[in-house]
Amino acid sequence: MKLGHQTWVFPSKPVILSSAAIGGPLEAQGPLADDFDTLHGDMMLGQSSWEKAEKTLLEECCDKAIEKAGLTKEQIDYFLCGDLMNQIVSSSFTARTLQTPFLGLFGACSTSMEGLALASLIVDSQSADYVLAATSSHNSSAEKQYRYPTEYGAQKPPTAQWTATASGAAVVGREGTGLRVTSATIGRVVDMGLTDPFNMGAAMAPAAFHTIESHFRDLQISPTAYDLVVTGDLGRVGHSILSELFQQHQIEIPPEQYKDCGMMIYGENPNVWSGGSGCGCCASVTYGHLLNRMKRGEWKRILVVATGALLSPLTFQQDESIPCIAHAVSIEAESEEGVQ
Amino acid sequence: MKLGHQTWVFPSKPVILSSAAIGGPLEAQGPLADDFDTLHGDMMLGQSSWEKAEKTLLEECCDKAIEKAGLTKEQIDYFLCGDLMNQIVSSSFTARTLQTPFLGLFGACSTSMEGLALASLIVDSQSADYVLAATSSHNSSAEKQYRYPTEYGAQKPPTAQWTATASGAAVVGREGTGLRVTSATIGRVVDMGLTDPFNMGAAMAPAAFHTIESHFRDLQISPTAYDLVVTGDLGRVGHSILSELFQQHQIEIPPEQYKDCGMMIYGENPNVWSGGSGCGCCASVTYGHLLNRMKRGEWKRILVVATGALLSPLTFQQDESIPCIAHAVSIEAESEEGVQ
Repeated sequence: MKLGHQTWVFPSKPVILSSAAIGGPLEAQGPLADDFDTLHGDMMLGQSSWEKAEKTLLEECCDKAIEKAGLTKEQIDYFLCGDLMNQIVSSSFTARTLQTPFLGLFGACSTSMEGLALASLIVDSQSADYVLAATSSHNSSAEKQYRYPTEYGAQKPPTAQWTATASGAAVVGREGTGLRVTSATIGRVVDMGLTDPFNMGAAMAPAAFHTIESHFRDLQISPTAYDLVVTGDLGRVGHSILSELFQQHQIEIPPEQYKDCGMMIYGENPNVWSGGSGCGCCASVTYGHLLNRMKRGEWKRILVVATGALLSPLTFQQDESIPCIAHAVSIEAESEEGVQ
Repeated sequence: MKLGHQTWVFPSKPVILSSAAIGGPLEAQGPLADDFDTLHGDMMLGQSSWEKAEKTLLEECCDKAIEKAGLTKEQIDYFLCGDLMNQIVSSSFTARTLQTPFLGLFGACSTSMEGLALASLIVDSQSADYVLAATSSHNSSAEKQYRYPTEYGAQKPPTAQWTATASGAAVVGREGTGLRVTSATIGRVVDMGLTDPFNMGAAMAPAAFHTIESHFRDLQISPTAYDLVVTGDLGRVGHSILSELFQQHQIEIPPEQYKDCGMMIYGENPNVWSGGSGCGCCASVTYGHLLNRMKRGEWKRILVVATGALLSPLTFQQDESIPCIAHAVSIEAESEEGVQ
């Protein structure tokens, strides 16, 4: 149901029947390790290339989410997936394995919530019984594609972020018990003219702000409607900028009620500079850690705002600035009894 | 509304309020030239790079579709778009220009119907009043990214296809008069083990077959329900293979009722080998030529089946085969009076 300019409300409140998170070696050292279903010690996952490792990560995560929902892959009506690889090959090859009708998405690191928003719309409109939404990223495949060969050991500035080796997946269904998706706000592209691909957090913060402000406006609610607002992958730099934007615009979100997935996934590890990033960061933190805490009753309503930087190495070379986007999805625990 | 395993039926029959097609110099020489809204004589479109030319093509096409619908861009609720460039930058940068809430898609050359299917679902579920679905491709930007530098003058086999320099866009709305979208079938990935990126038509034909067969099965209809079944970009080679598959499986579609956009766009021009391809091929032929002929009353119901090869240069280098997909959308003229 359309509400306001860019927000969907889902009257049937589609259920997140299950979710899964899979990570790599660095994620295993982070403070959220216990919230991953599987943690791999080997960046290659036994495969012959980083790209095949990423595909394996994503396949495992989808399998785990389907298994946790008590379903078989044949019961999944649609698979919505995207990733950072050129031509989203991790997703397409996983779709080949799953043999589920497939809709390929691209929203860079905003893909996780783009997928969850669309999955919820499809389920809410009774166009499917079960939809699987997933995404992934792999540090080495992303470094290889977007940046310098890792063997160069190129230094990065403190504003840079570390692409997570992680995947997150969720099965959304029409009926059952679990956390529920109540609304979604689809972002506009915001581009403040920043051009530094090693400072994505600063570039993406205004897009996150715009989507969050639109969400509150469209639904005519205030931040108190949520126990937690969490951005995907702004990192320390972007988190700080967004916090300032909240203050400047009188959006009152107490510091303890605003978190960022990119800051949470690796804790205080200084080797990740400003924090984590990559499609798999927001996806694995949300589908692992955040939903686990909701299930434990710590929060009743959260707003997950996945942010994406929609540049490519080529647009950077051609002196373009960085277009950014953010998609927000609200997740609710209906009642304590209703939550598994 | 879910019907069968992978088909949506849209009870409200969303209206294609307008559509636009823009092409380049080679498209201007083809037999469908009169059906393009604008034809550019310059592959650069006055821009400084092929990529910027592609973005300009897409922007112009979106503007034209919005203008033809009698709307302003502020009235468009959502923009669904994808293209062949890495990180779909043509689409993302166009979304920056439009400032419309944006959902990025990737389905290679199947993107046109992925977008139209989702746009129709969003409109049918009353989640938007107006959705713009678009896609583009540019021969030179695609050759540069996917193949050899054009300056090499590398020879291609007769099974190769020519990436169209074209864009197609449609505005889908809840109310008004025009052609209507009645159903959509979302494809599974089909991979028959073919590995030759210069023979995409052969790789994609089985995916088209699978989607068409699923469409008829899910809706419990026969090919006689349509005046025309048209595939996107199989070219002569793929068209011939799909025609054989129809025969083998007793799907009776008379030869004159099955066409392919890749064969139509350039006619008998021998320089395009097996025919046209690229996201913009199926999109511009459908949103220009095919809808024009429907509006003239030549066909009442058509099924557009856009096919996509979901490989990347990297998966080819890593000896993977080519995963393919096809999405089908049925378009109807409600009645002769109802058609503008």
